[in-house]
Amino acid sequence: MKTPLEFRQLCRRGGFAGPTAGLVPGYVQANLVILEKEFAFDFLLFCQRNPKPCPIIEVSEVGQPFTPITSPKADLRSDLPRYHIFREGVFIEELTNVTSLWKDDLVAFLLGCSFTFEGALQKAGLPVRHIECQKNVPMYRTNIPCQPAGIFSGSLVVSMRPFTPTQAIKAISISEKYPHAHGIPIHLGDPSLIGISNLEKPDYGESVPLYSGEIPVFWACGVTPQEAIGQSKIPFAITHAPGHMFITDLVEDL
Amino acid sequence: MKTPLEFRQLCRRGGFAGPTAGLVPGYVQANLVILEKEFAFDFLLFCQRNPKPCPIIEVSEVGQPFTPITSPKADLRSDLPRYHIFREGVFIEELTNVTSLWKDDLVAFLLGCSFTFEGALQKAGLPVRHIECQKNVPMYRTNIPCQPAGIFSGSLVVSMRPFTPTQAIKAISISEKYPHAHGIPIHLGDPSLIGISNLEKPDYGESVPLYSGEIPVFWACGVTPQEAIGQSKIPFAITHAPGHMFITDLVEDL
Repeated sequence: MKTPLEFRQLCRRGGFAGPTAGLVPGYVQANLVILEKEFAFDFLLFCQRNPKPCPIIEVSEVGQPFTPITSPKADLRSDLPRYHIFREGVFIEELTNVTSLWKDDLVAFLLGCSFTFEGALQKAGLPVRHIECQKNVPMYRTNIPCQPAGIFSGSLVVSMRPFTPTQAIKAISISEKYPHAHGIPIHLGDPSLIGISNLEKPDYGESVPLYSGEIPVFWACGVTPQEAIGQSKIPFAITHAPGHMFITDLVEDL
Repeated sequence: MKTPLEFRQLCRRGGFAGPTAGLVPGYVQANLVILEKEFAFDFLLFCQRNPKPCPIIEVSEVGQPFTPITSPKADLRSDLPRYHIFREGVFIEELTNVTSLWKDDLVAFLLGCSFTFEGALQKAGLPVRHIECQKNVPMYRTNIPCQPAGIFSGSLVVSMRPFTPTQAIKAISISEKYPHAHGIPIHLGDPSLIGISNLEKPDYGESVPLYSGEIPVFWACGVTPQEAIGQSKIPFAITHAPGHMFITDLVEDL
């Protein structure tokens, strides 16, 4: 899989359903949120008010499962490895294709993802633990409230990568250059300060080991909207499955 | 008028109805767009797709003429010097207070304004011609199309300030630090290259003199949405009158 198109076509024909960290290096990865037009203004406003977890990459036209600006040949209904379906705010099932669920009043949002700068971290010689361990990145619900917008509210979700202090400083400096992929971290060190009680029990994804001398570093995460969808209890929503992202045609160093 | 609150209270009691360039130095000024909830998603998306002319400062809750995040004590219906009223996309009248026109389904948008960085230009020793001449800034419709979003489309509107080439370079460097006030210019020099035929006939505001050795420098302008409202023919909209801005409580160097 050398190009985003090849990757997306593989997903489209059901040939891949795993996490996307480290895949198709050099291209921007994105979170997906699909909901009904009726709630689209509130959701777009939620993103505007919470740009760290929800940096907007592209918003589809109403009823169009396409993102012509960032990925002209993509179909958002089939080109991600896995989807989560929510009804009345409750997660009800995981699917690898949502074509049959598409409706004319749906709007799709692509939001930036921290996988986007992991290539740059690796190029700088930094370890990315979940890629090394071939696991999904660990993600945690925090006690940091998002700015509410209309019917949407909820807590910030973060992704975590372990680093030595020196590596952490480098990772901060590098990720700062990617404001559309969550940018600089929101916390480092003691997880309890942001309401995380146990690093070994992530709320999404899988746990990864912290080695001696390492501290956890936390970035705002595009799973945050899934918490907000839960709070809102909107009738219907589709998202990517955490860690199973949409890969755009945008090059990483945009 | 030392504080934004004092300025807004003066407007509220009908005591001021002029342009705001140079007023209440040190505070962020903002363009205003008010429209019905039905069109708010398309408009917010238009802003998201056109961040140079439409950098979002704050969006009100539906039905609330208030902006608690940036200016807690303000009332958007009375605290600007002048308003423009549009019906079916057509400008129909200018008012100094729109309280009687407020409805429960209206949403208000504050968008960044280039007046915000004029204090910084002056501090750097650069002339700001329309302030020197006590005129409203000249604004021009260009031939540069905006990215359409839903029912909104139209041409970019720009504001113009004359500078010598050396001053222009300094002005570019300074305005770059204010991405939420339109940031760097979109053009300098020959106006015809962006579809402006006569600098002495601005489409909004007033003309200002260019002195020998000066070139015009053009910034994206928050009047751009007024063009898009015209194109859209939406039933109802309220905006600020060009050059007659809302002054927020945000400090300029935010």
